[in-house]
Amino acid sequence: MQFNIDATQNKARACTIKTAHSTIQTPVFMPVGTQATVKALDANDMLSLGAQIILGNTYHLYLRPGSKLIKKFGGLHGFSKFPNSFLTDSGGFQAFSLSDNSKPDENGIMFRSHIDGSKHYFTPQSVLDTQYDLGSDIMMILDDLVALPNTKERIKLSIERTTKWAQEAIKYHKEQQAKGIGLEQNIFAIIQGGIDKEFRKLSAQQLCALEDYDGFAIGGLSVGEANEDMYDTVEWTTQFMPTDKPRYLMGVGTPEDLIENIDRGVDMFDCVMPTRNARNGTLFTSFGRVNIKKACFKEDEKPIDETCECYTCKNFSKAYLNHLFRAGEITYFRLASIHNIHYYLDLMRQAREAILQQRWPEFKKEFYAKRSK
Amino acid sequence: MQFNIDATQNKARACTIKTAHSTIQTPVFMPVGTQATVKALDANDMLSLGAQIILGNTYHLYLRPGSKLIKKFGGLHGFSKFPNSFLTDSGGFQAFSLSDNSKPDENGIMFRSHIDGSKHYFTPQSVLDTQYDLGSDIMMILDDLVALPNTKERIKLSIERTTKWAQEAIKYHKEQQAKGIGLEQNIFAIIQGGIDKEFRKLSAQQLCALEDYDGFAIGGLSVGEANEDMYDTVEWTTQFMPTDKPRYLMGVGTPEDLIENIDRGVDMFDCVMPTRNARNGTLFTSFGRVNIKKACFKEDEKPIDETCECYTCKNFSKAYLNHLFRAGEITYFRLASIHNIHYYLDLMRQAREAILQQRWPEFKKEFYAKRSK
Repeated sequence: MQFNIDATQNKARACTIKTAHSTIQTPVFMPVGTQATVKALDANDMLSLGAQIILGNTYHLYLRPGSKLIKKFGGLHGFSKFPNSFLTDSGGFQAFSLSDNSKPDENGIMFRSHIDGSKHYFTPQSVLDTQYDLGSDIMMILDDLVALPNTKERIKLSIERTTKWAQEAIKYHKEQQAKGIGLEQNIFAIIQGGIDKEFRKLSAQQLCALEDYDGFAIGGLSVGEANEDMYDTVEWTTQFMPTDKPRYLMGVGTPEDLIENIDRGVDMFDCVMPTRNARNGTLFTSFGRVNIKKACFKEDEKPIDETCECYTCKNFSKAYLNHLFRAGEITYFRLASIHNIHYYLDLMRQAREAILQQRWPEFKKEFYAKRSK
Repeated sequence: MQFNIDATQNKARACTIKTAHSTIQTPVFMPVGTQATVKALDANDMLSLGAQIILGNTYHLYLRPGSKLIKKFGGLHGFSKFPNSFLTDSGGFQAFSLSDNSKPDENGIMFRSHIDGSKHYFTPQSVLDTQYDLGSDIMMILDDLVALPNTKERIKLSIERTTKWAQEAIKYHKEQQAKGIGLEQNIFAIIQGGIDKEFRKLSAQQLCALEDYDGFAIGGLSVGEANEDMYDTVEWTTQFMPTDKPRYLMGVGTPEDLIENIDRGVDMFDCVMPTRNARNGTLFTSFGRVNIKKACFKEDEKPIDETCECYTCKNFSKAYLNHLFRAGEITYFRLASIHNIHYYLDLMRQAREAILQQRWPEFKKEFYAKRSK
């Protein structure tokens, strides 16, 4: 993976990441393609939208269709036909959140499949094996997640375990690469610690000392804490992260969250929000959110956003989308998802331009000004 | 509407219909776009598939979003952005089949909305008013449907009523056109009579005597009768229909049904089968049906049909479609619907070519030969 910082302004960064499959320009938002597809869209839709990288969920793909099957198709790229980069998570988060009973121990996480109740065990090594099969360009390592709020002891254990697993993971990855496996795959560690500054510092310092990692993520946020706590934690944590590697804030968030965290030095984001909210009727625009279900849009001949260049806005009225939503038409899900993903990707392209042109503070001000009109 | 017979062979016909919105080459299959969209697809998808005409359901559109609203958008064309032709049914069939309690009388059909239970009354005149608002290129008239089997008396009443309503409808349409309404809209009557030859003859003769109609449909078939009975009824009925106007067999059917009824002189078809079956996992090919859910396709790298030129077959494997179906991904519905509609439209294009080239019997033979392999 090549990494270059193209420009910075205050803490905001515009970088370029080159993987074996694509050039990724940051700040970047990675649409979530949980089960080898971004919901309601296909590989060509994602290319048309200009997605340079999408996220796949290891837990889901491991269970169905299985990583061995995906490997036979040349990994996620060959299976889904999306030629740009994939980042895959470790599976730990879903094992933790979706499984009826998941149990971490010193060596990994035991869990039962949410599909058929079958028993599985993820270790720092096994989740990499799965991700070698998936052929992801960026692999995330297994971390020990804890529900918040929790005791200091449990959070401390989580950080110790996460560091231990990170040490094991990078060791295993280097051994595998020495055998010719995963040579074009990159690996990121995940900083934990809730919203506790000392824990975050400790976790960041321990993990960032592992210099073979290609990048670092901030995990365990956007799980119900106040927005200000999330922003403060990110701001605090990034100072302990190296500048010469990508910084990825996992599972975040709203357009406002993205802007605030770019401002605090984050390069990469992912979130189900644009696609999930699209399906629920919430559409994102430069002037705020639009609830397409509303009766006031029933006869509205205008597109969602008259300044938007997306396929949906170029072709269809709010009235038509309102009708499709109310009538429960599947067509709605695709058109709404296209709009929301376009909004997120375009916001990142604009943010990058602003940083490159050294007008990031003005851009941020305009971003909020448009919304408060 | 301009109508031209381009070629015939035995009873099979290749015709051209020109409406205000498109040139329709027959035999033609009209994909069903019940609620102003073909399920899982949009107007541009339908254009890419080469659809020259699609069907909208008056009952659904009347109830939601309402025909007055659609009129404001320039009819179905403006609302959905599909620029080619629309045929709309009268609404009678859905009022009959979807409503909890529909009740026909001498003047129309009283029914309750399946959405909110509200009470509505369709008359031969009112369903045309709705269709003027929808701006459909071909309007179907209200007919008196009866559940089969039924008494001779009830079927006789249905035919008398259908003829009476057809007389009222064409009178009303001509009056409206004299006022400048619906000038570019065409109107088809619907022959009823179940599978009773005398009733079919009577209905056909009474309706086809109404020379102002632009075309005639055979209704009330594919409702559970044996296939042979359907084919016999069509063969019997077409002899009483004029040759210089389009013949439309409503709600039919399988690829085999289309071939058999082209062979018996039918020009136009519609059916939910390609889209509904796609969503249920059944895909149509030249060699028969493929159940994409089957475990044998889990690792199948080939497309649904290697000879198929559709977007789905050009891009995705059966394994990927099998996975998307099993994982419940919305993306599957679009890809499968594209394939099935392409199959139906392409079958009609091939049938037309065969008739034009006077090799219809050979084409029919090959059609079956490929399926029995």
